[in-house]
Amino acid sequence: MFEFQVEATSGAARSGLLTLPHGRVETPVFMPVGTQATVRTLSPRDLMTVGASLVLANTYHLHVRPGEDVVATLGGLHRFMGWDRPLLTDSGGFQVFSLDGFRRVDEDGVEFQSHVDGARRRLTPERATDIQWILGADVAMAFDHVAPGRADEPTARDALERTLRWLERCARRHRELSDGGTVGPSDRQAQSVRPSDRPTVRQTLWPILQGGTHHALRTEGLQRILEMGAWTGLAVGGLAVGEPKPAMYETLQALEPRLPAALPRYLMGVGFPEDLVAAVERGMDLFDCVAPTRNGRNGAAFTPDGPVNIRNAAHREDPRPLDSGCDCETCTTFSRGYLRHLFVAEELLGLRLLSLHNVRYLIRLAAQMRAAIRAGDLPRWAADWRRRYTQPG
Amino acid sequence: MFEFQVEATSGAARSGLLTLPHGRVETPVFMPVGTQATVRTLSPRDLMTVGASLVLANTYHLHVRPGEDVVATLGGLHRFMGWDRPLLTDSGGFQVFSLDGFRRVDEDGVEFQSHVDGARRRLTPERATDIQWILGADVAMAFDHVAPGRADEPTARDALERTLRWLERCARRHRELSDGGTVGPSDRQAQSVRPSDRPTVRQTLWPILQGGTHHALRTEGLQRILEMGAWTGLAVGGLAVGEPKPAMYETLQALEPRLPAALPRYLMGVGFPEDLVAAVERGMDLFDCVAPTRNGRNGAAFTPDGPVNIRNAAHREDPRPLDSGCDCETCTTFSRGYLRHLFVAEELLGLRLLSLHNVRYLIRLAAQMRAAIRAGDLPRWAADWRRRYTQPG
Repeated sequence: MFEFQVEATSGAARSGLLTLPHGRVETPVFMPVGTQATVRTLSPRDLMTVGASLVLANTYHLHVRPGEDVVATLGGLHRFMGWDRPLLTDSGGFQVFSLDGFRRVDEDGVEFQSHVDGARRRLTPERATDIQWILGADVAMAFDHVAPGRADEPTARDALERTLRWLERCARRHRELSDGGTVGPSDRQAQSVRPSDRPTVRQTLWPILQGGTHHALRTEGLQRILEMGAWTGLAVGGLAVGEPKPAMYETLQALEPRLPAALPRYLMGVGFPEDLVAAVERGMDLFDCVAPTRNGRNGAAFTPDGPVNIRNAAHREDPRPLDSGCDCETCTTFSRGYLRHLFVAEELLGLRLLSLHNVRYLIRLAAQMRAAIRAGDLPRWAADWRRRYTQPG
Repeated sequence: MFEFQVEATSGAARSGLLTLPHGRVETPVFMPVGTQATVRTLSPRDLMTVGASLVLANTYHLHVRPGEDVVATLGGLHRFMGWDRPLLTDSGGFQVFSLDGFRRVDEDGVEFQSHVDGARRRLTPERATDIQWILGADVAMAFDHVAPGRADEPTARDALERTLRWLERCARRHRELSDGGTVGPSDRQAQSVRPSDRPTVRQTLWPILQGGTHHALRTEGLQRILEMGAWTGLAVGGLAVGEPKPAMYETLQALEPRLPAALPRYLMGVGFPEDLVAAVERGMDLFDCVAPTRNGRNGAAFTPDGPVNIRNAAHREDPRPLDSGCDCETCTTFSRGYLRHLFVAEELLGLRLLSLHNVRYLIRLAAQMRAAIRAGDLPRWAADWRRRYTQPG
């Protein structure tokens, strides 16, 4: 369980196989984001048809609504959302640090106001670990302190140091739970969780490396994480949070040779096609992003020839599919003209069909890179892909 | 083609088989409504999984957006919406007569303002027939004059008389088109329709009987429609438009013995479960209604034990499916607690899952009645059904 095997490499890029309690995950892999225990507009059956192998859900959102206790009573997160393949939950760190003006941070944790009802709540490393344990995803993430992308060195160091201290607390709590400990009292209704309702949890905890775009901080942080114990995976956080894109690529590039080859590497929050390709080239394995569903709902579709805005009048009578090489339901069934009609007529099916395609696009993109890595051919593949993706339409 | 065979009866109720160019339809049958060439929130694949055999689309809506010419250029309505089973289009009559204050009726037709852009447009019997021919559904409906449900006898007679005169014009136009005639100039862009883009149309035209709740008018109208020619089906319009429910049932009951047994009978706009059952008992065969999708989007689900409002707090931790006897994706995958969460969290998947279930519910209800009719057992089945559906939860 929680094993990872690198099966092939091409430069720094790797293809691997991650074994989790609910199934195997071939890497590189893109994880669709099911913020509120649903990948927006898509059903679990849709996710199966587009080949999703690992889905992310947001601890912060599920904590404030419906509450982890409700999820537990309804059989845990897998059963709740009807997804019996692997799941990963983030820790809520990113979300609470995004509630700028509505949160107060101290060494113990973060006090924040719920975006749903304004209620004051508190997340600590221990609570975030408890909540994720109750949700029961295959992979839980450590509760981290996220600094803005352009943070200076002292701010980034503060975030890194606190994240490391919190990581120790998360790891301790997770060990207690794995050893049969019970979760601490929840901040509202611990009574309603009947332990018998909770399925047996088999879960691993992954640390998050902070340090902004400061290479020395990243190196130091990595070393201290690795010294802390034996991990089954490692996440790189605090990127794609407002820093310039070249700075993100350089940070990954500098970090990569220092990363232990044996651990799966999860680059958090990254999912635009060009970033996915650049990050795989820099040795990253797992990715998540709301871009495919959010953009899809806005009428923006990923295609091998670059983004397409389906609302554009040019598509009015266009009989072609969105992406002629795509095997998704949207592309094998409907014309661009019909998809445009759905958006112009404000039909909900349009949001769904573009979300479905975009998720399929990123999952296929990761699978194509996997194939290129196994063929030892990623550099040429990536050059071809970039030429086509960026050429003016 | 366009054949209908009654295979069994139980009292006035019938089970039959309707053969259309795009497939066979077992009756009684419920038609989901795809107003804008999409059954709201559902994909054609969803419609297949819930057993839809015939889908309705709205001529008025497709005429104003995207325009029948766009649909024709994109291969006709079947190809446009990705549905290769039978389709029926209404004539737009009901919609334009609903545009109260935004339409002017004269003997030639109806001038109205589009709800989309306020543009003035005109529908006549000939235009409505042309548009439906261009759309290319299996069944087209005659352009009718719809009076309100509580209209007095003179008003209802006016509507009936005009509908009969318009029926002659629709039938003449439809004959011309079937004989190879070309459609008249459209009110905006006839040039853009290239005849070669249009698939061969095999379409039948059904008349609509008006007459409100005035039995003598219905009888007279029916006789005059039948004298007009040989039809392949017959619609009963002008019911479920605001009249008291008992008046609708009595009108159907009085009409039924006079209806020719050989024609399929389509009761327009009816689709609440109790009305479906009552109308099948009174010899009706086909039904359409937006209720399953509209109610579904509002969180109201049909179940054998009566309607369920999924937003209700009672469902918060309810692990049961919406309808334990239902075989749809919603009921076989998700708990009421999860469905409630989707609605409370305003997730689009909720709208879709309840729409899917409600459509499946009505299609199954029709199929159950069909089975009961074939078993010669409809009265007992209906009594059992009513007892359960109306018993206090």
